[in-house]
Amino acid sequence: MNLNYTNSKCKIVVDAMGGDYAPHNAVVGAIEAAEEDQNIILVLVGRETEIVKVLNDNNLDFPKEQIVNADEVIGMHDSPTAALKAKKNSSIVVGANLVKNNEADAFVSAGNTGAMMAASTLLIGRIPGVGRPTIGATIPTEKGNFCTIYDVGASVDSKPRHLLEYAVMGSIYAEEIFNIKNPTIGLLNVGEEESKGNKVSLEAYELLKNTDLNFTGNVEGRDILKGTTDIVVCDGFVGNILLKFAESIMGLLKAKFKSFAGESFSNKIRVGLAKGTLKKVLKDMDYQEYGGVPLLGTNGISIIGHGSSSVLAIKNMVLRAKEMYDKNLIHKIEDSIKRYAN
Amino acid sequence: MNLNYTNSKCKIVVDAMGGDYAPHNAVVGAIEAAEEDQNIILVLVGRETEIVKVLNDNNLDFPKEQIVNADEVIGMHDSPTAALKAKKNSSIVVGANLVKNNEADAFVSAGNTGAMMAASTLLIGRIPGVGRPTIGATIPTEKGNFCTIYDVGASVDSKPRHLLEYAVMGSIYAEEIFNIKNPTIGLLNVGEEESKGNKVSLEAYELLKNTDLNFTGNVEGRDILKGTTDIVVCDGFVGNILLKFAESIMGLLKAKFKSFAGESFSNKIRVGLAKGTLKKVLKDMDYQEYGGVPLLGTNGISIIGHGSSSVLAIKNMVLRAKEMYDKNLIHKIEDSIKRYAN
Repeated sequence: MNLNYTNSKCKIVVDAMGGDYAPHNAVVGAIEAAEEDQNIILVLVGRETEIVKVLNDNNLDFPKEQIVNADEVIGMHDSPTAALKAKKNSSIVVGANLVKNNEADAFVSAGNTGAMMAASTLLIGRIPGVGRPTIGATIPTEKGNFCTIYDVGASVDSKPRHLLEYAVMGSIYAEEIFNIKNPTIGLLNVGEEESKGNKVSLEAYELLKNTDLNFTGNVEGRDILKGTTDIVVCDGFVGNILLKFAESIMGLLKAKFKSFAGESFSNKIRVGLAKGTLKKVLKDMDYQEYGGVPLLGTNGISIIGHGSSSVLAIKNMVLRAKEMYDKNLIHKIEDSIKRYAN
Repeated sequence: MNLNYTNSKCKIVVDAMGGDYAPHNAVVGAIEAAEEDQNIILVLVGRETEIVKVLNDNNLDFPKEQIVNADEVIGMHDSPTAALKAKKNSSIVVGANLVKNNEADAFVSAGNTGAMMAASTLLIGRIPGVGRPTIGATIPTEKGNFCTIYDVGASVDSKPRHLLEYAVMGSIYAEEIFNIKNPTIGLLNVGEEESKGNKVSLEAYELLKNTDLNFTGNVEGRDILKGTTDIVVCDGFVGNILLKFAESIMGLLKAKFKSFAGESFSNKIRVGLAKGTLKKVLKDMDYQEYGGVPLLGTNGISIIGHGSSSVLAIKNMVLRAKEMYDKNLIHKIEDSIKRYAN
């Protein structure tokens, strides 16, 4: 029995219009989660007619009063801040406002990442003491475990203080959600020595080493996949570029196999034989498998999914939101951030 | 016939002590290059006794007067700037000084990258108008060609002006050495839109778009392996982290295959069958295959090799140095940089 669990009812809003396969995947995945955990009170926000159609098509029984209509949709390529202003009745704005107004405990969306980020930060607001919320990305390592990188795109030109905040919040998330005791934290840098780095990393090193966090020093680009530390902190500019690079590796591998197969008939057969093995081996290198990433630092639970989220990914995101609620993550972050206030 | 080629004699100094397999690989590779191009006057710098031993062991005929003795060696883990001061008689310092004093045209080393960088910049000096020299890394793309990233570690906290310099120098290198006409240049950023990015990238965008370089705008992390542009410019902090991450991908792949093979006997056989194919396919993803990277912006040719450089890698580095000499690269960079002076 996990004593951290409150197991009280938790109202989770899911953006039915978010993601490339919306509303189908969002609606079906969210309902699967609510069926698995009876303490989830699910609210679907989006175009009611489209939501009802998915419910009917899939013979799903869902109370009409838990559907909140929102006529507008923020597209994947809309400019986040402009869309927030222009589309007040979009599922993302309406959903975030439900959390802001304490009418819901968590918001989950596989829609426009930037818009979700902006809506969560601007509408739900920041946890007191947090200068910048952060998005983490979980990457598989050689050791068979995972390394979570903060920040991968929530903000650029992070100040040293922000990197400290990422470490504090990431550490709590790793302890509570990944069950890693005293998770190790590395500062992403161009060398291992304390004297290495740019101005921000040099100052961040000073801040981090004077905490009781399990800060193990600088890590380099190669340490992420090696699994040197559980958590890696860096400016969002670096983290975002690194994550998008990592996500593109599969494309290069596929292209290389295709061109090799095209060279000769025997190569084609070889690739055919290797393909199944490769697929299995690389399955957990496919970053899209992991579902949503948490946005940490907002004063309410917010989970942002990949645009291509599957039904399972959406389901896992909703269950993750519930877990964050049960484990009282927002308050734990608030308490911890207070301890590191200037 | 390439009219750019001067085909005059070129004196190239090779650090015999540089690299994990020194002095063997350095000496043998350098001599192979000099045999291939009779216009190379090779100078080997390092511990004379050790060099002579390699010559004797391999039955190589090499004039004693072209060996410059240097008793000290800067190790792979020595602190670059400290080592330059403490080890005045190291092969790296002696070699760089030969170029500085116009006693040689080029310097090639697979030794300590940081020390080579520092020796080249501080001793050989910068091309007039160049604020910061840069190291490039060449990465294979989905398209089957290459993308060269500048900077991957020569400097951090680059100013917008430095990113412009990287673009100018990288463009000349791509035209002259890779024979790419009017190479495309992307600015590494967190989004494609001109309005995206941190302070440095926003300013660098302004500088780059007002040149006659083939600047195509911002590129994201995923565009590198896609091969969106021939050249990608970024701050050395980002580039270095990215390169080291890229170099570590093979390690993750190997670990994943190993763990998959360990799961069952049939998996073991599958991996055995796939291994050969995979090896062939991934060969050109192995970044160590490419040999040396050019250091651009120093007022003399300087090529820095990977520590694990093979005989072939060293040979290619020496031939590359000769090509840079024949194509008058230093003066072309100087002329071009002048055109973009404030």
